[in-house]
Amino acid sequence: MTTLKNDRFLRALLKQDVDVTPVWMMRQAGRYLPEYREVRAQAGDFMSLCQNPELACEVTLQPLRRYALDAAILFSDILTIPDAMGCGLYFAQGEGPRFMKPVQTPGDVEALEVINAEKDLGYVLDAVRLIRKELNGSVPLIGFSGSPWTVATYMVEGGSSKEFAIIKSMMMNTPTVMHELLEKLALSVIDYLNAQIDAGVQAVQIFDTWGGALSAHAYREFSLAYMNKIVAGLNREKDGQKIPVILFTKNGGHWLEAIVESGCDCIGLDWTLPINEARARVGDRVSLQGNMDPAVLYGDASAIRREVGLILEQFGHGNGHVFNLGHGIHQHVNPDHVTAFVDAVHELSAQYHA
Amino acid sequence: MTTLKNDRFLRALLKQDVDVTPVWMMRQAGRYLPEYREVRAQAGDFMSLCQNPELACEVTLQPLRRYALDAAILFSDILTIPDAMGCGLYFAQGEGPRFMKPVQTPGDVEALEVINAEKDLGYVLDAVRLIRKELNGSVPLIGFSGSPWTVATYMVEGGSSKEFAIIKSMMMNTPTVMHELLEKLALSVIDYLNAQIDAGVQAVQIFDTWGGALSAHAYREFSLAYMNKIVAGLNREKDGQKIPVILFTKNGGHWLEAIVESGCDCIGLDWTLPINEARARVGDRVSLQGNMDPAVLYGDASAIRREVGLILEQFGHGNGHVFNLGHGIHQHVNPDHVTAFVDAVHELSAQYHA
Repeated sequence: MTTLKNDRFLRALLKQDVDVTPVWMMRQAGRYLPEYREVRAQAGDFMSLCQNPELACEVTLQPLRRYALDAAILFSDILTIPDAMGCGLYFAQGEGPRFMKPVQTPGDVEALEVINAEKDLGYVLDAVRLIRKELNGSVPLIGFSGSPWTVATYMVEGGSSKEFAIIKSMMMNTPTVMHELLEKLALSVIDYLNAQIDAGVQAVQIFDTWGGALSAHAYREFSLAYMNKIVAGLNREKDGQKIPVILFTKNGGHWLEAIVESGCDCIGLDWTLPINEARARVGDRVSLQGNMDPAVLYGDASAIRREVGLILEQFGHGNGHVFNLGHGIHQHVNPDHVTAFVDAVHELSAQYHA
Repeated sequence: MTTLKNDRFLRALLKQDVDVTPVWMMRQAGRYLPEYREVRAQAGDFMSLCQNPELACEVTLQPLRRYALDAAILFSDILTIPDAMGCGLYFAQGEGPRFMKPVQTPGDVEALEVINAEKDLGYVLDAVRLIRKELNGSVPLIGFSGSPWTVATYMVEGGSSKEFAIIKSMMMNTPTVMHELLEKLALSVIDYLNAQIDAGVQAVQIFDTWGGALSAHAYREFSLAYMNKIVAGLNREKDGQKIPVILFTKNGGHWLEAIVESGCDCIGLDWTLPINEARARVGDRVSLQGNMDPAVLYGDASAIRREVGLILEQFGHGNGHVFNLGHGIHQHVNPDHVTAFVDAVHELSAQYHA
């Protein structure tokens, strides 16, 4: 189906036969790797690293040099879109992301313009083209975006939040304004992901990190509805190859039946719902990605192997499983433990694909 | 069944007939109330407030003076047990709880002693007796404890945590040590809750705030198993009255079938699982408590009323519903919004109990 040397990841997303279960990790290019920290220090701040295609390419490739991962993921951030919209993204020392101009009033929302990715986020597309060239067909490259709801939480709160007081007030008291913001973000995400696909990414993932902070009905109205719109607006094929779409709502396990309806190819799972239960609920309609607790990587090699074996056994025989963590890898994990993890997935999964 | 003037709360917990759905709020005695902040300032630090029975009684009663709540909950903290064990609880300015002596090595765990509540936590029991006297039979008083897993997260991490790196390392690499700690905490919780029951609380809730950070199988082994032990060890009757037990695992909606097996009377729900789905899964075996997103209280009175109506409609006709938020009330909520909330529950629920 492709000229890739290793196409397990794309095949599993589309529920096709594979020899072993493919594996990658959210945030696999990141702070747990000493070589990443070195490049990061060289770049200066985090956004300078994202905005430098050569350095972004370098850190994207780093984990692939260490581990037998079945996919690369573009090194970037979910907040490049609001940054391109003029919200003034910065990272305060030792804190999370912050915005100089939070979006909190009807006027703030009205003033925002839908981005043009080619013009506004050319540095990301340059990075995609460079990474594809450097990967040279070894494994596929994943592009990504935050979901409109998740990106909006940072824009409205002005940074990270625990209780989402400001955005939930907006949602309750001025739902029309909230929808206007989400609509502009959805259109921006469609343009951004289609530009990433044009530039060469071979699958895309939408990270809905904070959809799970909503009630079931609020999730449908304020998060899922906009992901549905995005899935419908994406170019799902390029050069005769299907571009699979993964939706990942952390803490969204109660809503799998609704998420399936989006038309996505794959649902990402956190580790609270056993993958066999998820599979029973979605049937053959989508593939599943997940779902090991990232904290298992604090365990020794035998503990990691035991947990990998358990999840593979839960999924059982058949196609449609991409192994991953249920959230990004933690920064204090010992890099050697990742070797044990990746190798365990490949070694222990062969029996389920015989 | 009791000489209480208002026994709706206890009756609903036991799935008996009520005229309207009872309502209370987790953290109803708290920082959103200006009169609480005044007493808190007078007491000095947070622990001094907990340790002063007169002041603890005063803040327990404050929300009942403003709102038609159907239960009072003892003002205290889930970390009184490790404080009594000698871990040195303190609250740093603007931060969460901290321990001077975190419990991280096998030796640390071995050195801990199971508490004797009468001897070690007499100030809590004095507060219970005083509150019962002051309530004078108006509404029932709820006692509580943290779950062993949840309390252990603070003891091992030395305070609040996002990733639970240290305790999950302990769980993975030295499970025997982890179990020894949880066992000591479970025995302490049993003694503590039985002492609260002796002193006069009329129902108890176990707060498992962080059980939902675990995978399904780790939850059963490291959190639920110890709550099962506690439920089995409690004095479930006092002076001919049943003492109902509520288990609340935040983010535990995937595991309701397992939680029911504990033998608890009621399961607390967060707001991610619609309460009709929860009810269909647990049937008549337990009552349900919940489950409005606390952030709905940022909405105006009509938005609050709409959401209350939706949850009541989802639960539908029949017994066994205690209305509550899905987590503690946020500190920046306008106290007048709580009036709208409590009144809406009573007004809109009568039709379901006709």
